[in-house]
Amino acid sequence: MLQPLDRVRLVVDCMGGDHGPSVTLPACRAFLDSHPQAELVLVGTAQALAPAAGWPRCTQVVASEVVAMDDPVEVALRKKRDSSMRVAISQLKPGESGQAAADACVSAGNTGALMAVARYVLKTFEGIDRPAIAAMLPNQQGGFTHVLDLGANVDCTAEHLLQFAVMGSALVSALDGNEQPTVGLLNIGEEAIKGSEEIKRAGELLRAAGGAGQINFYGNVEGNDIFKGTTALVVCDGFVGNVLLKTSEGLAGMLSQMIKQEFTRSPLSKLAALVALPVLNRFKARIDHRRYSGGALLGLRGLVFKAHGSSDAYAFERAMARAYDAARNRLLDRVHQRIRNTLAAPAVVDAEAAAAEPPAKAA
Amino acid sequence: MLQPLDRVRLVVDCMGGDHGPSVTLPACRAFLDSHPQAELVLVGTAQALAPAAGWPRCTQVVASEVVAMDDPVEVALRKKRDSSMRVAISQLKPGESGQAAADACVSAGNTGALMAVARYVLKTFEGIDRPAIAAMLPNQQGGFTHVLDLGANVDCTAEHLLQFAVMGSALVSALDGNEQPTVGLLNIGEEAIKGSEEIKRAGELLRAAGGAGQINFYGNVEGNDIFKGTTALVVCDGFVGNVLLKTSEGLAGMLSQMIKQEFTRSPLSKLAALVALPVLNRFKARIDHRRYSGGALLGLRGLVFKAHGSSDAYAFERAMARAYDAARNRLLDRVHQRIRNTLAAPAVVDAEAAAAEPPAKAA
Repeated sequence: MLQPLDRVRLVVDCMGGDHGPSVTLPACRAFLDSHPQAELVLVGTAQALAPAAGWPRCTQVVASEVVAMDDPVEVALRKKRDSSMRVAISQLKPGESGQAAADACVSAGNTGALMAVARYVLKTFEGIDRPAIAAMLPNQQGGFTHVLDLGANVDCTAEHLLQFAVMGSALVSALDGNEQPTVGLLNIGEEAIKGSEEIKRAGELLRAAGGAGQINFYGNVEGNDIFKGTTALVVCDGFVGNVLLKTSEGLAGMLSQMIKQEFTRSPLSKLAALVALPVLNRFKARIDHRRYSGGALLGLRGLVFKAHGSSDAYAFERAMARAYDAARNRLLDRVHQRIRNTLAAPAVVDAEAAAAEPPAKAA
Repeated sequence: MLQPLDRVRLVVDCMGGDHGPSVTLPACRAFLDSHPQAELVLVGTAQALAPAAGWPRCTQVVASEVVAMDDPVEVALRKKRDSSMRVAISQLKPGESGQAAADACVSAGNTGALMAVARYVLKTFEGIDRPAIAAMLPNQQGGFTHVLDLGANVDCTAEHLLQFAVMGSALVSALDGNEQPTVGLLNIGEEAIKGSEEIKRAGELLRAAGGAGQINFYGNVEGNDIFKGTTALVVCDGFVGNVLLKTSEGLAGMLSQMIKQEFTRSPLSKLAALVALPVLNRFKARIDHRRYSGGALLGLRGLVFKAHGSSDAYAFERAMARAYDAARNRLLDRVHQRIRNTLAAPAVVDAEAAAAEPPAKAA
């Protein structure tokens, strides 16, 4: 078992996101109050950081440039070498002492740029072809289901899905204290015979890794299992993950709008709304996406957390809290350890056992 | 313009679905009352059909076997040759007179078996490699967004997605009277540069077909656009379609459960629920999935509609109503016409125009 870190230092890209310092600085201030052990490194332009002068447990690093939310990846990567995003991520690289200036980085900057810069600056772990983004969605059990990949990788191979399962298991163990989280492979049916050839092959790899005790593989899950909370972790390729996340956001948005419309339709409905308001507010709080803001970029030699671009101070602070928990519980070491245990010694796929699966059910 | 049919005859697989005749017969009875011009052909075991003896505008065809909801495709296809499902679908085949006994078939039987039997009995249109399933999801505009494919086809090529766009456009024109429905290609970003190689190629094919006036191509859409109602039609491969449909069902289920929990949490909440009940019921009615029950199997030489396996009489009747509208508005001729216009004379993909797309945005 890995001992939690005594001291955690987060580095914050204060310029990222739709609202920049007007959101990130209040979030940092609130975070310092709620985390009396934490230290922060604030990165931004000198002018933007001025209001934070003299804050406790806080150092500042000045960067002269800012990656805009609509900057192409190439601009972030090649033109803006002194951007707050890049300078913040660079704080995660170990110096000559072997120690890095910070344990995890949080940014609400543009996802493509963040992923590209983080990958360029930090590099991936050996055995990891592509970093992935993991996020958590609320489920019926009152907890969260972690899902990856969410948009970084299209056209994933079976090997990539296995890597996601391994890294995701490390993430859940660090955030939820669940050392053997169940892993579901997102598919279009529960039977092992379902899905594309690549998904079936992924099923075999995951089953083999499960048999070898490297992950806790549950089997195939379907879209509705995410919100049921059937498994702690669901792996899928980035295309499917992005579609399911955005579809869910769209549906939740439509339903909220419909509830609002129905409660404002007539004077009588408005009266009902008044009576129902405390209940509706509790409901709203439960599904408040800001509570589970903060995606983890996994597979890199450094912990990078992405807050939603439209984050307000509360959402950004929640992403910081998640990054803090992950760093404190040594997510990076956990990912590294699991990669070494699994991907360095891949479980042998038992073709006979795979062939002995129950017969095909109707599609 | 195609003239609507004067007389529509539906054939109903009365044995399909989780509840069989106990649901389908009351649905047929209600349908006959609400559609005074319609005629029905009821297919089922003699015993099951007995209660319907003497119904007006109704004939019966007896079948000796029933495809169970968990029968493998092979059993439905090769063993149960006198199943109600197969006999019902066979009524769509033109006889020696060139006329078929019925204009459209409705079944709540198992999807895989229905698709396989329909494909075997009816065959696909020339130019169509794979039939697809289209369904409609409610959107914020107060209307519906049609989505296909929903689970029948994994690993779709760009050509398949073009076929879905063409068939789906015919469906929307028949059901909604919208002759040039907008078509969106489901992707992970709006820019033409996004997505897998196959999706990008599909974008080129669809853009070319749009340029040639064969479809009304809008461009890429994202998951949230489905519920926004950005386009009338959204095309995607069957894997993604199945995941997004089931994810949406799961999320809607979780949110309903949470609303219920919040309104029953305390005596005060229950009081609020009492006051809010009419409003909540109106909300519930708006998102009632039974209202838009009924997926269309497209690409076959016959109109087959699939009702949800768990349909109650109301949901099954809605699926019948949809099949009736589609048959009356000559969906089959519309599909055939569009296939001839588009796929027989494919638009030339303009590689230069494709290359002149706006530059890549951040991933």
